[in-house]
Amino acid sequence: MKLLSFFADGRASFGAVKDGGVVDLGARMAGDDCTTLRRLLEKGHLAEAAKLAGSASPDHALDKITFAPVIPDPGKIICVGLNYRDHVAETGRTVTEKPALFVRFPCSQVGHLQPLVKPKVSDDFDYEGELALVIGKKGRHIRASSALDHIAGYSCYNEGSVRDWQRHTSQFLSGKTFAESGSFGPWLVTADEIPDPSKLSLQTRLSGNVVQDTTTDLLITAIPELIAYISTICPLVPGDVIVTGTPGGVGAKRTPPLWMRPGDTVEVEISGIGTLRNKVIAEPT
Amino acid sequence: MKLLSFFADGRASFGAVKDGGVVDLGARMAGDDCTTLRRLLEKGHLAEAAKLAGSASPDHALDKITFAPVIPDPGKIICVGLNYRDHVAETGRTVTEKPALFVRFPCSQVGHLQPLVKPKVSDDFDYEGELALVIGKKGRHIRASSALDHIAGYSCYNEGSVRDWQRHTSQFLSGKTFAESGSFGPWLVTADEIPDPSKLSLQTRLSGNVVQDTTTDLLITAIPELIAYISTICPLVPGDVIVTGTPGGVGAKRTPPLWMRPGDTVEVEISGIGTLRNKVIAEPT
Repeated sequence: MKLLSFFADGRASFGAVKDGGVVDLGARMAGDDCTTLRRLLEKGHLAEAAKLAGSASPDHALDKITFAPVIPDPGKIICVGLNYRDHVAETGRTVTEKPALFVRFPCSQVGHLQPLVKPKVSDDFDYEGELALVIGKKGRHIRASSALDHIAGYSCYNEGSVRDWQRHTSQFLSGKTFAESGSFGPWLVTADEIPDPSKLSLQTRLSGNVVQDTTTDLLITAIPELIAYISTICPLVPGDVIVTGTPGGVGAKRTPPLWMRPGDTVEVEISGIGTLRNKVIAEPT
Repeated sequence: MKLLSFFADGRASFGAVKDGGVVDLGARMAGDDCTTLRRLLEKGHLAEAAKLAGSASPDHALDKITFAPVIPDPGKIICVGLNYRDHVAETGRTVTEKPALFVRFPCSQVGHLQPLVKPKVSDDFDYEGELALVIGKKGRHIRASSALDHIAGYSCYNEGSVRDWQRHTSQFLSGKTFAESGSFGPWLVTADEIPDPSKLSLQTRLSGNVVQDTTTDLLITAIPELIAYISTICPLVPGDVIVTGTPGGVGAKRTPPLWMRPGDTVEVEISGIGTLRNKVIAEPT
């Protein structure tokens, strides 16, 4: 099942993709107190959603909705840095035993087909295609062996980065959470359709040119171990997002650097999920 | 006015401190859709709260409530690292031109008098006394000259840090957001009572011994410039929290290191605000 968050008719909702349209689960499950995808996951009502989506006809055409980030308001967006060897190598850093974690705020993400905003204070606006996962079941001190049971599903993420601000200090945050600088979508593919997230291929394209191309078996810290590590620190709860890291090929490490510029189209495609596509615009001055 | 979040009679609320008690504003302003302190700030109803608190009698004795973090559910908790010269010096780092920003998640904070939890995976549990501010008015690209207008008030923060996990990689997050490892309180003192936040004194005490002692004029990046810098990156909205940095004297840089241990009491006292006090307990095994 493909689940997404969207706006239609001036209302925020969520739904399931079916026959080129969207079954509006937010409207149909409102009586069940499930008006957002995060709330659906909190209530653990994925099976009810699947049953409804199976029997209903689409309420909206896909080209009539406005895509929101898959989870518009995650309690946590935890990003993993330096988690592919070719990316570690291009940055001149060395592989660490533990994953390097940092954060984005929800205001930094937009949905599929919504504009990515290049800040007016920088031109060093870089793409990072990544596999994201969404937590579906609460846990603390989760063992790697059972970690996949805590995942609701998978999506594409463009972890847009403002490189000069990222390098202001040792801490990445400043360059990683510019307003509307990243994207998350187009939808969540539920985990039953992706039994092994280490067998996916990922490609990032900038205005049609392939700039990143990898397979997810190359993650240095694999998804089960990421969940085990993070949940040692704090609970993971439904709707939390983990963005698993970007492969080599980022724009900052090319000669000359290759930045996302207003007018560019950026795509992150992951096998079994789909293609997240965004145009780049300039922040209004 | 002193505003706080609390639990009483099994219910979460917020209120104003008055005559050694608490006026339950969450109950009294529920009809105004103000059931949390964050919501009050979002609606901009501080003046109404002050009027109500002025005319009402306390609903609860202070010693009958359970203190919650001042804002239990901030949309952002942005911490500033390395923002006092004596702390930069003790870490062996150098002063950066821009502030080093990182994040805590809301699940990492507890209220006044609630236990701080030493994780079972580490004994390197360190205190960091800090001045925190809460945003009261939304803004982007805020100028330093008008930044103080965006502050609802000030509070004490113990930015509890798990040092070995903080050092796993270049990014601080892992050591900074352990569940219930930090504290925020006891209350927010509204900005009208603190016209100049650079004129405060701050002291951290571990089981009665002074371990940090500073004045806030020594912040490397002062509060107006912090707000200007952060709001260049993304909007600041009511309820967002900025934790401004810790002075020298942290436990990790002493010989031998001085850690918070189960049974210890930690206090962060700031002039004009009050004293945030927490006992340390061990995470259940």
